[in-house]
Amino acid sequence: MQARSSAQDSTCKQRTTLFFSVRDEVGALDKCLRALKAANVSMTRIESRPSRSADPGYDFFVDIDASDKDLVQRVIEEIKQIKIVQDVRFISSLGSQQLPHAEQERVPWFPRKMTDLDTFAEKVMEMGEELTSDHPGVNDVEYRQRRLEIVQKAKAYRTGQPLPRIEYTDQEKETWKQVYTRLHEMYPKYACREFLHVFPLLEQNCAYGPDDIPQIEDISRFLKDCTGFTLRPVMGLLTPRDFLNSLAFRVFHSTQYIRHHSDPYYTPEPDCCHELLGHVPLFADPNFAELAQEIGLASLGASEEDIEKLATIFWFTAEFGLCREDEGIRAYGAGLLSSFGELEYALTEAPEKHSFDPSKTALQKYPITQYQPIYFVADSFRDATAKLRDFNATMRRPFQVRYNPYTQSIEVLNSKDKVHHFARSISNEMQLLTSALELI
Amino acid sequence: MQARSSAQDSTCKQRTTLFFSVRDEVGALDKCLRALKAANVSMTRIESRPSRSADPGYDFFVDIDASDKDLVQRVIEEIKQIKIVQDVRFISSLGSQQLPHAEQERVPWFPRKMTDLDTFAEKVMEMGEELTSDHPGVNDVEYRQRRLEIVQKAKAYRTGQPLPRIEYTDQEKETWKQVYTRLHEMYPKYACREFLHVFPLLEQNCAYGPDDIPQIEDISRFLKDCTGFTLRPVMGLLTPRDFLNSLAFRVFHSTQYIRHHSDPYYTPEPDCCHELLGHVPLFADPNFAELAQEIGLASLGASEEDIEKLATIFWFTAEFGLCREDEGIRAYGAGLLSSFGELEYALTEAPEKHSFDPSKTALQKYPITQYQPIYFVADSFRDATAKLRDFNATMRRPFQVRYNPYTQSIEVLNSKDKVHHFARSISNEMQLLTSALELI
Amino acid sequence: MQARSSAQDSTCKQRTTLFFSVRDEVGALDKCLRALKAANVSMTRIESRPSRSADPGYDFFVDIDASDKDLVQRVIEEIKQIKIVQDVRFISSLGSQQLPHAEQERVPWFPRKMTDLDTFAEKVMEMGEELTSDHPGVNDVEYRQRRLEIVQKAKAYRTGQPLPRIEYTDQEKETWKQVYTRLHEMYPKYACREFLHVFPLLEQNCAYGPDDIPQIEDISRFLKDCTGFTLRPVMGLLTPRDFLNSLAFRVFHSTQYIRHHSDPYYTPEPDCCHELLGHVPLFADPNFAELAQEIGLASLGASEEDIEKLATIFWFTAEFGLCREDEGIRAYGAGLLSSFGELEYALTEAPEKHSFDPSKTALQKYPITQYQPIYFVADSFRDATAKLRDFNATMRRPFQVRYNPYTQSIEVLNSKDKVHHFARSISNEMQLLTSALELI
Amino acid sequence: MQARSSAQDSTCKQRTTLFFSVRDEVGALDKCLRALKAANVSMTRIESRPSRSADPGYDFFVDIDASDKDLVQRVIEEIKQIKIVQDVRFISSLGSQQLPHAEQERVPWFPRKMTDLDTFAEKVMEMGEELTSDHPGVNDVEYRQRRLEIVQKAKAYRTGQPLPRIEYTDQEKETWKQVYTRLHEMYPKYACREFLHVFPLLEQNCAYGPDDIPQIEDISRFLKDCTGFTLRPVMGLLTPRDFLNSLAFRVFHSTQYIRHHSDPYYTPEPDCCHELLGHVPLFADPNFAELAQEIGLASLGASEEDIEKLATIFWFTAEFGLCREDEGIRAYGAGLLSSFGELEYALTEAPEKHSFDPSKTALQKYPITQYQPIYFVADSFRDATAKLRDFNATMRRPFQVRYNPYTQSIEVLNSKDKVHHFARSISNEMQLLTSALELI
Repeated sequence: MQARSSAQDSTCKQRTTLFFSVRDEVGALDKCLRALKAANVSMTRIESRPSRSADPGYDFFVDIDASDKDLVQRVIEEIKQIKIVQDVRFISSLGSQQLPHAEQERVPWFPRKMTDLDTFAEKVMEMGEELTSDHPGVNDVEYRQRRLEIVQKAKAYRTGQPLPRIEYTDQEKETWKQVYTRLHEMYPKYACREFLHVFPLLEQNCAYGPDDIPQIEDISRFLKDCTGFTLRPVMGLLTPRDFLNSLAFRVFHSTQYIRHHSDPYYTPEPDCCHELLGHVPLFADPNFAELAQEIGLASLGASEEDIEKLATIFWFTAEFGLCREDEGIRAYGAGLLSSFGELEYALTEAPEKHSFDPSKTALQKYPITQYQPIYFVADSFRDATAKLRDFNATMRRPFQVRYNPYTQSIEVLNSKDKVHHFARSISNEMQLLTSALELI
Repeated sequence: MQARSSAQDSTCKQRTTLFFSVRDEVGALDKCLRALKAANVSMTRIESRPSRSADPGYDFFVDIDASDKDLVQRVIEEIKQIKIVQDVRFISSLGSQQLPHAEQERVPWFPRKMTDLDTFAEKVMEMGEELTSDHPGVNDVEYRQRRLEIVQKAKAYRTGQPLPRIEYTDQEKETWKQVYTRLHEMYPKYACREFLHVFPLLEQNCAYGPDDIPQIEDISRFLKDCTGFTLRPVMGLLTPRDFLNSLAFRVFHSTQYIRHHSDPYYTPEPDCCHELLGHVPLFADPNFAELAQEIGLASLGASEEDIEKLATIFWFTAEFGLCREDEGIRAYGAGLLSSFGELEYALTEAPEKHSFDPSKTALQKYPITQYQPIYFVADSFRDATAKLRDFNATMRRPFQVRYNPYTQSIEVLNSKDKVHHFARSISNEMQLLTSALELI
Repeated sequence: MQARSSAQDSTCKQRTTLFFSVRDEVGALDKCLRALKAANVSMTRIESRPSRSADPGYDFFVDIDASDKDLVQRVIEEIKQIKIVQDVRFISSLGSQQLPHAEQERVPWFPRKMTDLDTFAEKVMEMGEELTSDHPGVNDVEYRQRRLEIVQKAKAYRTGQPLPRIEYTDQEKETWKQVYTRLHEMYPKYACREFLHVFPLLEQNCAYGPDDIPQIEDISRFLKDCTGFTLRPVMGLLTPRDFLNSLAFRVFHSTQYIRHHSDPYYTPEPDCCHELLGHVPLFADPNFAELAQEIGLASLGASEEDIEKLATIFWFTAEFGLCREDEGIRAYGAGLLSSFGELEYALTEAPEKHSFDPSKTALQKYPITQYQPIYFVADSFRDATAKLRDFNATMRRPFQVRYNPYTQSIEVLNSKDKVHHFARSISNEMQLLTSALELI
Repeated sequence: MQARSSAQDSTCKQRTTLFFSVRDEVGALDKCLRALKAANVSMTRIESRPSRSADPGYDFFVDIDASDKDLVQRVIEEIKQIKIVQDVRFISSLGSQQLPHAEQERVPWFPRKMTDLDTFAEKVMEMGEELTSDHPGVNDVEYRQRRLEIVQKAKAYRTGQPLPRIEYTDQEKETWKQVYTRLHEMYPKYACREFLHVFPLLEQNCAYGPDDIPQIEDISRFLKDCTGFTLRPVMGLLTPRDFLNSLAFRVFHSTQYIRHHSDPYYTPEPDCCHELLGHVPLFADPNFAELAQEIGLASLGASEEDIEKLATIFWFTAEFGLCREDEGIRAYGAGLLSSFGELEYALTEAPEKHSFDPSKTALQKYPITQYQPIYFVADSFRDATAKLRDFNATMRRPFQVRYNPYTQSIEVLNSKDKVHHFARSISNEMQLLTSALELI
């Protein structure tokens, strides 16, 4: 996937969170849930915590589909009837702790748990089911039919299901072979050390090779073992916000169709050659995985301006990034590693090369239909991540988030309780670290 | 699952780790992997790191099945032939960093990644496919046939597959209804606050109710959302070591068959009533989940004596634990919450009650076929976990481990590199905490 | 010093803190200070912070002597007249963040900075200037005169001054020689490893030896270099609260007079033999220093009951503690190491010996005029400190404190700002640790 | 003090560290110390730790004056004669843990404890006792005599002594009054918020005012209470290395003489107007104190190139720094705050102003005898400190250091033991933080 900047409507979401407190009485929650059920409200999440207002008691947070305003109003009225309920109201998607009202308004919705990514499935900016006029396959009915067949699987995919396996045609395999063979020859000279290290493991574990296109299910399992990254199929280009948000979950959206056979060395959109050869190998590297997730975490609830900055940073790292090695500059960006033309060009003297510095990189303009005139060179993924963290700190989002890999959900650290819980967890880790240090 | 202590052979494992270093040359790893493939060696894990001896280069760790000693020897010889390989040898299962030789000998094998738990599937101590003579269903051919049918699904299950769904018979549902109804009435008076809090959520999210037995697939998804715990089906009693080891991965092994209909209030072995009513609710509580995982982490590579202590602690917490609440003592152990007889008895004055103190609890003898004469009372799950951590520190295992929830694998913190990496991660978390503190 | 429990009046302190906010205007503080000066109020501390109520502006906290109530009232009235002052009131000694009112009442005063310890100088429980009837020197006019001369120096001592040097008489030196010589012979067999390690360093650096009594100024400098502990002269027994409180500052109160020459092997009160031979060596050990400070920190603002528990713990550690070494049990308590009779007795089979367990040790009754029937044995100072921390956590003081060794003052961590600042400091340390780990 | 760059010989130090191990035998250390004493070796530091090679036993590190090579050799021979000694050799000043030999050679000596700063007292670059030809007082015999009188006190000062009090003459007071009065008028408009906040406190606590020159003893006490910074008297300009090194101890070297009365608004060297009006107020600010110490810590054992960079950073922060406030840019550098001419000029549009960025600031050339053409503007002291830490990390000194404020000494974190001990301390702090978070 490439993240291209574009306007996006993030206000159309009709999801809201219903909040209510109940006194701790036998059957309390029961009664409330029955009322919601009776009203036929679709609940997507239920959270609770010991109540602050009703003591002893519990506070509940129920995510509901709020498109039918009347229905929602009726539900509230019904719940208010229940004697033990002490407070019913709607709150923002930031959950249990409320931001000052003015700020809530300004914080765009963002996914809080893995299944929230399912809402991205049918929302693509372009190229989802239709091709643009400059696409080499735009007039090839058979190609468009095949493409449609493949993206339907992406559209239908939901969290937890096995990833779609595609039986590729001989023509598709032939296109892959041409791309694979040519790039494979170039990698030893142009690709970064981490890429070269992972590639044979992909051959070994995920059937990478010239003869067939690897399956994203196999790749996803392998990445999970390496760094916890997983793949999801996608119909086409997501909005930059959705695409970046999913990186916070260590999830990468990958297309499964392939470019048109008429021109194996050209594609105006991401295809499986770009994803599997360009992007995948780096996601197996722990330091790159951290860098990518860091961009994702910064994008959650970010302003449109900040999304654009982060998308630009993604462009100049994950897509077109160069890095410094002992023997010289090498490529790690997927846009380079999946395009033998630009891969060669990028490492010549022709283009400008600047050191990666997020505050500058974030503002750099770039063309999307031609070779880049400027590249940014990272000292290392670690260093780039450290710089990115400092840069993110300047964004001044009014809250901090943390990804919980156990529950695959985002925690908004906006209450003393959550911060205290996080501190306890760090304290436990420090004890473990201290004890490990004693034993090495 | 109940964890009963018993002798166990952990030395029969035929898995070993092959280590070799290669100089950093184009195609280096390729050549090695081809040699292994040619020799038809089954590799279950490949790990690598920048080499310490061959610089620049990489060290590789390949887990292989070592039952055919001759084959293994041949492989080594073949690899030695490859010019760029500089060091080939076998090392212990503790992986990349070697413990002093004497200690390696003494450290029992333990699972390093989620898929390693697959090896437990066919290894049960008793009751797997056969019933003991005191089992009420021992002479009921139909019951035994049904039971066999269910455990076959557990035997066949492997990591990543959907959990088996069982279509329960009317007779089975009737047994469930009797148990469920009777216990459900008692809970408000006897069960701990956390249990009572979660139960309605299970009714809402996992179809808990008197009319049908819930499916572990639904429960497992729910638990994953709450705490990251997941369920796996199991044929019967695992060895205490295997059972406890899996808790380190936040995995709980659950049976799916049900007790014999002739006596709905009695079972000599764990069944789905015990698992789903007794154990499951607590695994949805973050603090209890931490307690259970802490027992699991301590059990990895532990000595037989320590496994016995930890199994005893599990017995007196997760199976028969009591806890102190404002209104008095309540039950949180599954053995109590799934047996209305002992549940009532435990909270009377009859049995002795001591404060939970791992160093004492770990040594307490207990009967398994009658009501417990002694119970241990925890102040809270947090407090119990803190005490357990202090106790574990006294065990003096020669290494420390950490669970990586991203990759669902165990990291042995036995090298400076690993400790440094861990420290970096804590340092990043501290920065996040500091920044979150500023914003609340 | 021995800390004996006794009733104590901690409510007689007449110090209070005046709080006021001013708008940030040129000369704002100036005007206020002039008002206070004009009213002749004695200010002992001025603290300030950016204001929360007056923005932009500053909040001020001024400690004043509040014995003249009328004066204080007049001052308040005067300050209220100043136009830029927005809020004037008295607050508790806990400083900038207020505890709920009910709790403030219950928190006894405690020293917040090093100079606060000066208030202890004239406040001794007994034996300060007068001797009890059982003292061997009670009827020796010359001895009493000499003792008075020495304690006058202690009474006059204030923070920052050089410690009093005493020119000891030949008779005093002779008493010292007898005690020193006899104990010195016993140490190799009875004293703990840390004591034996430090002793020759004291001979080297502080002129320890049989021929003259070492000067506390020299010892204090040496201890400062080792662990940051320093000595202060004292007239006699402080209240347990005052004595323990000063340990929080790594300050130990030491007498300078010596027992009566008529019986060199007996003293009913601490004297310089007890302090310099018994206590001093251990304060040069980093782990013991941490243990002692931990007792001190727990005693700040503690309830009378908790002070008694902590004094008892001090008794059974710093005064009569034993510890486990490879070769057997050894003594580290000053009461033992300064009494050859009890030193020998304690390590026989005669007395009971229990493992050090603060929750039990804190409740143990003990005689003060005869050999102890029960001793507590620590595994190590580190282990004892860890156990003590866990015990202190159970005391449930409504705030946490931290000693700032730069400013030699106590910080009460009772506001988000202070906790945030502390978190920043830990975060910086974690970065340093991570970086150090990379380099070793 | 201003830190001007200049060549410096740091290799002339004749101090070395003698290392030896002894078996743990009664009197072991004793024998060794006696040998050293007999040889009349001057020992400035004795450190020890449980031995790694002689077990059980101790390792000793004795800092000695090594100017008489023959003597040193004789001592070694003598110590080797002692039977229990197992290893005798000289090691580098980095102390107990040895760096690889090649690196030791390259690490310049640096102070390890507070008293090491005493060696700077007689080592000034210029202006110590003699004046340069452009000094307004160069031909004023009386002035030069008075100046000599004052610097003699600085020369004689040693750690732990009270700071010299100067009885200033009427002429000196008159010079001070002119400078003070004129600057005092300007501050409200030009000085940064932190400076303006502290100034009235200095008037209140340290007798700042137009009528007399404040005493550094009083100021030092006040600073100690605020941030732990203390002052030391100095004869004139220290080498940049010595000057910066002492900041690591939160020590600032201050002159006590005053400029020539003939021109109260000019001085070619730092004098008490510059120190007390320019520097002192900021050292009372916790965030500025951290910034200054951070420069100091980075300078310990740094290469000549890095010292020059750090001195340049000091120049553009502590001497000529500007900062951004809500109302506009303000001055915090002492060179500005003690010179009304440049103070006014700096805040006009005339000079260039860049954002503070250590990697650029460190390389900026600057004139020392005229107004600066370029200033650097910090966002805040915290932000500048964070940026400085990142910059320091790029210096790649082969070890990390930490200041221990208890013992007022530098710890080199170059062994697993020291890192482990540091980790324990952070872990304890994390527990305290977590517990404090629970209570706020």
